[in-house]
Amino acid sequence: MRRLLLIGIGAGDPEQVTAQAVRALNTVDVFLVVDKGGDAGDLVALRTELLERFVAGHAYRVVELPDPPRDRGAAAYAGAVDDWRERRAEVWGAALRDELPDGAVGGLLVWGDPSLYDSTIDVVERILRAGTVAFEYEVIPGISSVQTLTARHRIPLNRVAGAVQITTGRRLARDGWPDGVDDLVVMLDADCAFRAVEPDGVEIFWGAYLGTPDELLVAGPLAEAAPRIEALRAEARGRKGWIMDTYLLRRRLS
Amino acid sequence: MRRLLLIGIGAGDPEQVTAQAVRALNTVDVFLVVDKGGDAGDLVALRTELLERFVAGHAYRVVELPDPPRDRGAAAYAGAVDDWRERRAEVWGAALRDELPDGAVGGLLVWGDPSLYDSTIDVVERILRAGTVAFEYEVIPGISSVQTLTARHRIPLNRVAGAVQITTGRRLARDGWPDGVDDLVVMLDADCAFRAVEPDGVEIFWGAYLGTPDELLVAGPLAEAAPRIEALRAEARGRKGWIMDTYLLRRRLS
Repeated sequence: MRRLLLIGIGAGDPEQVTAQAVRALNTVDVFLVVDKGGDAGDLVALRTELLERFVAGHAYRVVELPDPPRDRGAAAYAGAVDDWRERRAEVWGAALRDELPDGAVGGLLVWGDPSLYDSTIDVVERILRAGTVAFEYEVIPGISSVQTLTARHRIPLNRVAGAVQITTGRRLARDGWPDGVDDLVVMLDADCAFRAVEPDGVEIFWGAYLGTPDELLVAGPLAEAAPRIEALRAEARGRKGWIMDTYLLRRRLS
Repeated sequence: MRRLLLIGIGAGDPEQVTAQAVRALNTVDVFLVVDKGGDAGDLVALRTELLERFVAGHAYRVVELPDPPRDRGAAAYAGAVDDWRERRAEVWGAALRDELPDGAVGGLLVWGDPSLYDSTIDVVERILRAGTVAFEYEVIPGISSVQTLTARHRIPLNRVAGAVQITTGRRLARDGWPDGVDDLVVMLDADCAFRAVEPDGVEIFWGAYLGTPDELLVAGPLAEAAPRIEALRAEARGRKGWIMDTYLLRRRLS
């Protein structure tokens, strides 16, 4: 039987990889890595560094998976994502069938934690449902960018007995601040959705490239911090060609 | 200057400790550990195992901190917590002043991740505000029980572009299912608050003693899984004298 390991490798700092992930990396015969093309060269270099640093004395191959194009302009967002995941499942399934010998161990590396805004588990389940290749699989957690964010700012995610919601920039921009929570984590924000928030009484704790040497951190009252973040973000994105950021919005308790 | 490290050590599986945490553990001269007394003997044994396994060639002392009693029956929950944290800050501050020499490194071990339903960061900030002892401090993230839960069940925390809320058993029992989310993580639930949820169309993914040899997992439609979880939970709690569990409730998308 083929085995597949979905390995969370943390937000970017190789030091945040767990002992369990290191052990898993050292059993993998074939790493399947998604070739995003273009501007994510920093992440490819980080991934290569991780493998060179942590895999000792176990021979492995790296198979690059071409990533199907995704229609980011589609009116029906969920439909476009569904279609893209289905085509990913076809490409990955074929690679598992053709590149992973029976009895061998395949590895999929996941930035951060596989549970948070990541499609890997879903794509793997789609391959199994399609039935074109049989395998067992296991998920290994990793430190997420949310945890790196809170650790670097030295803040808890929630207040005493409080709730915290994790949402997307798209939802915040469309629906505004959700009911029932005063602490809000925003991920996948392509366009500074915090501008949609009435800033009175709100603090922001923001971070980009968390865990990497390029890490940026800003914290403060939203009204004062927002323009600083917008400027920093635009500058860094222009210079590096890509940005990954996340933030916590915290509303003063009345 | 004294230094203090708040080290997330994961949910219970020593393999889920990060390289960064291991490196931090190996710089600590004095570990301050909270003596909860009573029935948490398993956790003390796990903590000792962690130190013996990961600290190599660095001498350290362990100082036990008596934990102030907490009024769990208080009508004003937040006030009782505030008072308890203030007394913790007094005890810990005195220990830092008296037991940690200038220039030495102190360590506080935190189960899971220091950002999630944990008082350590807040207590440390209270010590600094009190001004009785000066130190620098750093927070090191750890794998939380929520991540171990989702990894073991092989599920993502959120659905495509969806939001997820993390809340407490107390809030769920008091306020019911929160508005605006279909995925709900419940922590600190002393009394099966999922019984307050209308089970139609809801799935539960439950885990106890996550990451330890006693780990329990149940998943299924809430109506069918709830009585199984209640029975398993009561049995395990009776046998071991304590329980730590967490779960995800997932509502069918309409």
